[in-house]
Amino acid sequence: MSIAGAAASADLTKICPLVIHRTNPKYGADETLVVRVKHVEFGGVKPVIIGGPCSVESIEQTLELAHAAKAAGADMLRGGAYKPRTSPHDFQGLGLEGLEILREASLQTGLPIVTEVMDPRLVEQVGEYADMLQIGSRNMQNYPLLTEAGRFGKPVLLKRGMAASLVEWLGAAEYIAKEGNLQIVLCERGIKAYPSGEYSRFILDLNVIPALHAETFLPVIVDPSHATGVASMVEPASRSALESGCHGLIIEIASEKTGVPQPKCDAAQAISPTTLGRIVEFAHSRAGQRSESKACAV
Amino acid sequence: MSIAGAAASADLTKICPLVIHRTNPKYGADETLVVRVKHVEFGGVKPVIIGGPCSVESIEQTLELAHAAKAAGADMLRGGAYKPRTSPHDFQGLGLEGLEILREASLQTGLPIVTEVMDPRLVEQVGEYADMLQIGSRNMQNYPLLTEAGRFGKPVLLKRGMAASLVEWLGAAEYIAKEGNLQIVLCERGIKAYPSGEYSRFILDLNVIPALHAETFLPVIVDPSHATGVASMVEPASRSALESGCHGLIIEIASEKTGVPQPKCDAAQAISPTTLGRIVEFAHSRAGQRSESKACAV
Amino acid sequence: MSIAGAAASADLTKICPLVIHRTNPKYGADETLVVRVKHVEFGGVKPVIIGGPCSVESIEQTLELAHAAKAAGADMLRGGAYKPRTSPHDFQGLGLEGLEILREASLQTGLPIVTEVMDPRLVEQVGEYADMLQIGSRNMQNYPLLTEAGRFGKPVLLKRGMAASLVEWLGAAEYIAKEGNLQIVLCERGIKAYPSGEYSRFILDLNVIPALHAETFLPVIVDPSHATGVASMVEPASRSALESGCHGLIIEIASEKTGVPQPKCDAAQAISPTTLGRIVEFAHSRAGQRSESKACAV
Amino acid sequence: MSIAGAAASADLTKICPLVIHRTNPKYGADETLVVRVKHVEFGGVKPVIIGGPCSVESIEQTLELAHAAKAAGADMLRGGAYKPRTSPHDFQGLGLEGLEILREASLQTGLPIVTEVMDPRLVEQVGEYADMLQIGSRNMQNYPLLTEAGRFGKPVLLKRGMAASLVEWLGAAEYIAKEGNLQIVLCERGIKAYPSGEYSRFILDLNVIPALHAETFLPVIVDPSHATGVASMVEPASRSALESGCHGLIIEIASEKTGVPQPKCDAAQAISPTTLGRIVEFAHSRAGQRSESKACAV
Repeated sequence: MSIAGAAASADLTKICPLVIHRTNPKYGADETLVVRVKHVEFGGVKPVIIGGPCSVESIEQTLELAHAAKAAGADMLRGGAYKPRTSPHDFQGLGLEGLEILREASLQTGLPIVTEVMDPRLVEQVGEYADMLQIGSRNMQNYPLLTEAGRFGKPVLLKRGMAASLVEWLGAAEYIAKEGNLQIVLCERGIKAYPSGEYSRFILDLNVIPALHAETFLPVIVDPSHATGVASMVEPASRSALESGCHGLIIEIASEKTGVPQPKCDAAQAISPTTLGRIVEFAHSRAGQRSESKACAV
Repeated sequence: MSIAGAAASADLTKICPLVIHRTNPKYGADETLVVRVKHVEFGGVKPVIIGGPCSVESIEQTLELAHAAKAAGADMLRGGAYKPRTSPHDFQGLGLEGLEILREASLQTGLPIVTEVMDPRLVEQVGEYADMLQIGSRNMQNYPLLTEAGRFGKPVLLKRGMAASLVEWLGAAEYIAKEGNLQIVLCERGIKAYPSGEYSRFILDLNVIPALHAETFLPVIVDPSHATGVASMVEPASRSALESGCHGLIIEIASEKTGVPQPKCDAAQAISPTTLGRIVEFAHSRAGQRSESKACAV
Repeated sequence: MSIAGAAASADLTKICPLVIHRTNPKYGADETLVVRVKHVEFGGVKPVIIGGPCSVESIEQTLELAHAAKAAGADMLRGGAYKPRTSPHDFQGLGLEGLEILREASLQTGLPIVTEVMDPRLVEQVGEYADMLQIGSRNMQNYPLLTEAGRFGKPVLLKRGMAASLVEWLGAAEYIAKEGNLQIVLCERGIKAYPSGEYSRFILDLNVIPALHAETFLPVIVDPSHATGVASMVEPASRSALESGCHGLIIEIASEKTGVPQPKCDAAQAISPTTLGRIVEFAHSRAGQRSESKACAV
Repeated sequence: MSIAGAAASADLTKICPLVIHRTNPKYGADETLVVRVKHVEFGGVKPVIIGGPCSVESIEQTLELAHAAKAAGADMLRGGAYKPRTSPHDFQGLGLEGLEILREASLQTGLPIVTEVMDPRLVEQVGEYADMLQIGSRNMQNYPLLTEAGRFGKPVLLKRGMAASLVEWLGAAEYIAKEGNLQIVLCERGIKAYPSGEYSRFILDLNVIPALHAETFLPVIVDPSHATGVASMVEPASRSALESGCHGLIIEIASEKTGVPQPKCDAAQAISPTTLGRIVEFAHSRAGQRSESKACAV
């Protein structure tokens, strides 16, 4: 029957056993693997907050926002040196120069760095500067890239594809794990659905957080900036995400100083360091309670 | 151009001015209209928690769950007497007998009742028993029904259609308001998207909550039971929903006593009164903080 | 497991047996039930083409377009007297006056009429004028309306909901069949998906046509006007739909005379009688070949 | 306002001017660029039919299917040597050995070859064997890969991402064009929407074909095998696709001989060479008529 034949494509049992699946006997039934990026721990009781610019545009802009993120209480710094843009005619990032800027920002603030790598030939270069390699949504199923990231061995932040099923996402993570690298943090960043573009850029899917906890021991964080695409939605989305049981947030910020130019990329979704500070405060205040209800007993 | 022509279908300015829109000068820029159902207030600082069975199946089942909901701290009782089922061969609800049972449960517990009406010819009958009329997702654009509910004058709970845009939802609410009845509470209950059915029944869309606050002064609640379809997801979804700035929750519960038969409808998403109690506790503990961050400043 | 629990919602076996399902022993494995509307037959080799205005706006407009549809070779006349509009402030149709106009147009052209009914209290009134009752997308799961249409006994055109699953659609048809009325024609009219609004209003889903043939013996037609929302896409969409194995088309037209006012509703998707003529010609030219390949052998 | 801010993400004017856009003065208003792969021409009146196995599994299987495709009237041979699989534990393709097999099949049949490349480091290797490089759905926004394919200079078949907007798809093609390579053929292969998995694997989106013709002069073909995922739907989907105005089809076939093992990948969607023959016949019979109605006049 056509229906049965078609439904098969979304069936986890078709691709198991997976090293990263809960059925892996090395990990307890409710256990979350703790992924360490320098002194930062993903998967513990305390949520990890990553803040920073969408893209690295200059040394001044990056240092200002890195110090602002640090002051707001962020645990890590984000920023794109290599930017995947819908049009090749748009700003593509500063590349190696951007990585140098990120290193300086990390040295000054002590914040570990996560930044995106898009090209398997650049995994070594980006990996030399980054404390955590980000695989973006557009490359979630870029298997040669996942394999190189797995081989390099540094922790990987694997964003969900814009229309990835749970099975496709876990399968992508398995490409990294297959190389012997289990230092993987998953990141929900909003999916495409019919309302995309009406009032928000993507639809934040929080149902997938408990679903992930049921299927894998890997920690998962949420990107409320891309999941909404609207700055005024980022704070409520952050609180909601934390209550869903995720282990952290990755948030884009922009300067609140007057006279500073708009970000070249995704300006509409960048929040101020002040708002980031409120989110960090909320995250810390809720850390304890969240862990209690983590079991999600019926 | 094809693109422009098509995009028009999702444009709010095309259907404005609406009585329920923020542009209505009678209401302040950040004001939420308070909708009163007996002593219960939707739209205030304290979230309203509605609990009860999916459908009214018997006097024993309904009284047990009504008392359990009351004991758990719920503010109102839900329960379907007329049930819209995908197949006509499935249980369709007890009808008038179910309404009588709900009245008894309300008398014993003091909890106001919200129950669904599907037929404009039954608005008077259902309205005689219900304190609040529910218009279900399947009937969100059933305009004759919306008009009758508007004329009847009792408060209306308007659920979002499974694939309704913000514009379509506000337009539906306007059909009620056009009859002079502004006692409308909106209810997000999950939307259809590609993952529907893989790990959850629908996708809970919390981005729409701040979007609604930006467009209308009507209060909005969330139905985490239908938005997830999975009992173990209801508690985290409830916490997330409350943090998004909604004004309440409507939740399905089932008996935790042994030997009690499974619900005839949506058994997979019913939680226990114990879990409902934890959700109520969370709702009350967060009431204050939520109101502060309601402005969602950037 | 959450996945299994959720997936259940889209499972046909959960709602079978259905009178309208292929498992009904009264109908052959490849048989299509022929639904007769006066002299017009849905389900035969010759596709049925229904043409006419979106809504009945005046006697002049309707007569002009009815004669134009007839001249173009259409088999039936469409036109809305009761219009479900997103906003209550938009034109709602001429109601009874519109039905009188449709009757006059039918008398002058000999074309049977299909027109929408939205209110179970109006099934008798609309049914007195219409040769076929249309249940629109917004009301696909308006069960009291489906039941009344089933009881009335005239043929019913059941449009697919904007986000209806195959199971939900078949379940809706079963509400009509349950009343003893099997004179049902299904109508695919485009679904909501992430691209809706970018280049077309809805996404025409032709995969559902062979899927329907596999599950039911009821005939199915396609509405390329709503499925695209863009006039220039209607002709290719019509040809595509006919090749998918559907039994007819329902198409919106507008006057090509100069000085005639734009339609009050869905003007962007109305084609000219001239284009309708080309589509009719194509439909007749392909009638034979289609029937041969109907079996869709692998 | 949130709505405006969000909607911007799907706006073509935001990424124009594009070299591949109709606004490029080098190409006429209705002109289609003819892309040549050896003696095969994409974009002319005669549709190009590409047939072959999902993946190259052995010399025997590939030669059998290559000769069968040739006999059925196919113009080109498809077959995967490097396979992007959801799980790393599934068959990943024969790699270089598969390319050698494809070359042999091409030598024996005279059919040009299109095969997928996933890794920018393998563009030269794959390009040495392939007459046309395929960029798969998962890699539609793998910009380093698109850039390498553009630089290599051979014709590129760019499949649409499973949830790509028109803007994202055109932007991806522009990455190839930016390197001076306009030999690009676009391929619609079905999108993800809520019904995916109920009765078909993906939803074939034919509305995008005329939309593409309105926005770009590049030819476009359709992949009915992946767009349906169900063998019995491939023939009607192929006919529908051709009527929508596309310039060709790429179809997966499997042996109809008894005792031959099932394909290791996507067996449920492979059709027989006999059915492929019927599709080729249809394509040739409709070639003339299609060109006439190409203008899609309203």
